[in-house]
Amino acid sequence: MTTATDIDILVSEVGPRDGLQSITPIMPLEAKKAWITAEAAAGVREIEVGSFVPASLLPQLADTAEVVAFARTIPGLTVAVLVPNLRGAQAAVQAGAHKITLPVSISETHSLKNLRRTHAQVLQEAREIGALIASLPAEQRPSFEGGLSTAFGCTLEGPIADSKLLEIAEALMEAGCDEVGLSDTTGYANPAQVKRLVRLVRGVVGDHALSGLHLHNTRGLGLANALAGLEVGITTLDASLAGLGGCPFAPGASGNIVTEDLVFMLEAMGLRTGIDVEALLAVRGILADAVPSEPLYGFTPDAGLPLGFA
Amino acid sequence: MTTATDIDILVSEVGPRDGLQSITPIMPLEAKKAWITAEAAAGVREIEVGSFVPASLLPQLADTAEVVAFARTIPGLTVAVLVPNLRGAQAAVQAGAHKITLPVSISETHSLKNLRRTHAQVLQEAREIGALIASLPAEQRPSFEGGLSTAFGCTLEGPIADSKLLEIAEALMEAGCDEVGLSDTTGYANPAQVKRLVRLVRGVVGDHALSGLHLHNTRGLGLANALAGLEVGITTLDASLAGLGGCPFAPGASGNIVTEDLVFMLEAMGLRTGIDVEALLAVRGILADAVPSEPLYGFTPDAGLPLGFA
Repeated sequence: MTTATDIDILVSEVGPRDGLQSITPIMPLEAKKAWITAEAAAGVREIEVGSFVPASLLPQLADTAEVVAFARTIPGLTVAVLVPNLRGAQAAVQAGAHKITLPVSISETHSLKNLRRTHAQVLQEAREIGALIASLPAEQRPSFEGGLSTAFGCTLEGPIADSKLLEIAEALMEAGCDEVGLSDTTGYANPAQVKRLVRLVRGVVGDHALSGLHLHNTRGLGLANALAGLEVGITTLDASLAGLGGCPFAPGASGNIVTEDLVFMLEAMGLRTGIDVEALLAVRGILADAVPSEPLYGFTPDAGLPLGFA
Repeated sequence: MTTATDIDILVSEVGPRDGLQSITPIMPLEAKKAWITAEAAAGVREIEVGSFVPASLLPQLADTAEVVAFARTIPGLTVAVLVPNLRGAQAAVQAGAHKITLPVSISETHSLKNLRRTHAQVLQEAREIGALIASLPAEQRPSFEGGLSTAFGCTLEGPIADSKLLEIAEALMEAGCDEVGLSDTTGYANPAQVKRLVRLVRGVVGDHALSGLHLHNTRGLGLANALAGLEVGITTLDASLAGLGGCPFAPGASGNIVTEDLVFMLEAMGLRTGIDVEALLAVRGILADAVPSEPLYGFTPDAGLPLGFA
């Protein structure tokens, strides 16, 4: 969520969380700091820097508290984290994260496999997180987002019923979420569906409680889906530098949409992101040095910017 | 251009022309026939099967007359070809092509480098082709399209003036074209520009004389640009199976949008293409066998169709 008026679209970088969580080589803390610093310097206003999950499950993100503490020192940067439960939210609050996202798989099969929790259990965590945040002094409260995962379909269940999506979205708002976001965890979304589901969910949560999309490019439709979102008033788009990442629990799902390609598209369309594309492209060097075995994706980085692109 | 009422969008396969013209290994005539046969059997209604250019310039397409003769035997298939000049058009008429496209680079610099002709020279060819077609008995007349190349920007000139685009579009219609198509030869297009230029050109040529887009995926925006086209009423979209091809004279330009990904997007959106996606995916095997050294692109082929996709 952005309140800035000097940008049109908030590009939220999720690579340090969603990208890193799916790769094997551990990125050293110093490289994460360099990455976050460089993206912020390029103009990125929000970065999901990690996830408060048990270190035994995701050693890659074991240093999330330190990353949050560091990222908080960067002026103007919204420091976001993912949390799987109340315990994670407590750690996030302790560390001083500005924004907390609790993912809830609309597919209960996926929820059981991913978080080992039923919908009832996840929603109970959501209510407890809501109560925790409400108990804090106003100036210490992070914003709280419910991430509607597998909203566009599930690799285990297939199509997702609208009724289930709306039920979970409503329950998350009642639990105390400030907003919900639609997440194409499995790369199943298409542009017509993006428009339809954004409108449908807004009918339940209100227009201002759904501003963001988390899209994957699994079947090449990532930017088309982002465009569809723009056309129904979406103002926050998640993306991962070099397309690092994806959901390791959704077989066949490849990475997030590529930050570089997304920012190029938006800026080429005349939508202000606040991001310097050339500076953003240069940040790839940090990834290449820190995790040299990982492929770096993106079309714009390979092709270069158009002649005369300002 | 489609007159069929049982499909919503005509996907025009250009791989046998645009794809093959940019690769080195020569595809044997029998493989071309097998490719065209298999795509038509999968439901593809229009295929650009070759180009009538001197064999010395493009040995890959030296058998275009034979390919046209063969493709004409497939019921219901529109057999399209590219021609660079009157001489090519005469050969196309002789071979019995149903549709002829004359590309005109809106960037005169690109025109000089690509076709070695000024705008005045290309427009003179267009008028002569128009006269040739007008001289034929009605039942033998191919449809005649002017391809507005580098419409979205040029790797040599940079941005293209609207006035130049409109001037060439109008001149092509006056020369006898049935319609014009916008071509993102260089992969410079963005969705806002697609909408703007479609509307602008239609203001000059009329709504019914611009139904098609030829898009590249150079910067990853191909399908987003296609979606933008759909939203302003575009009904014909060019694509290349496995993303083969591109423009060898536009440095840095990679391939056409991938037919498989485009058809998946359209069908997922509920737009009827008449094409069986599974059958289309199987056609890749013919390319893999015939030109094994060429990379085959596409996200949907790698990821597979979503669970429950009908």
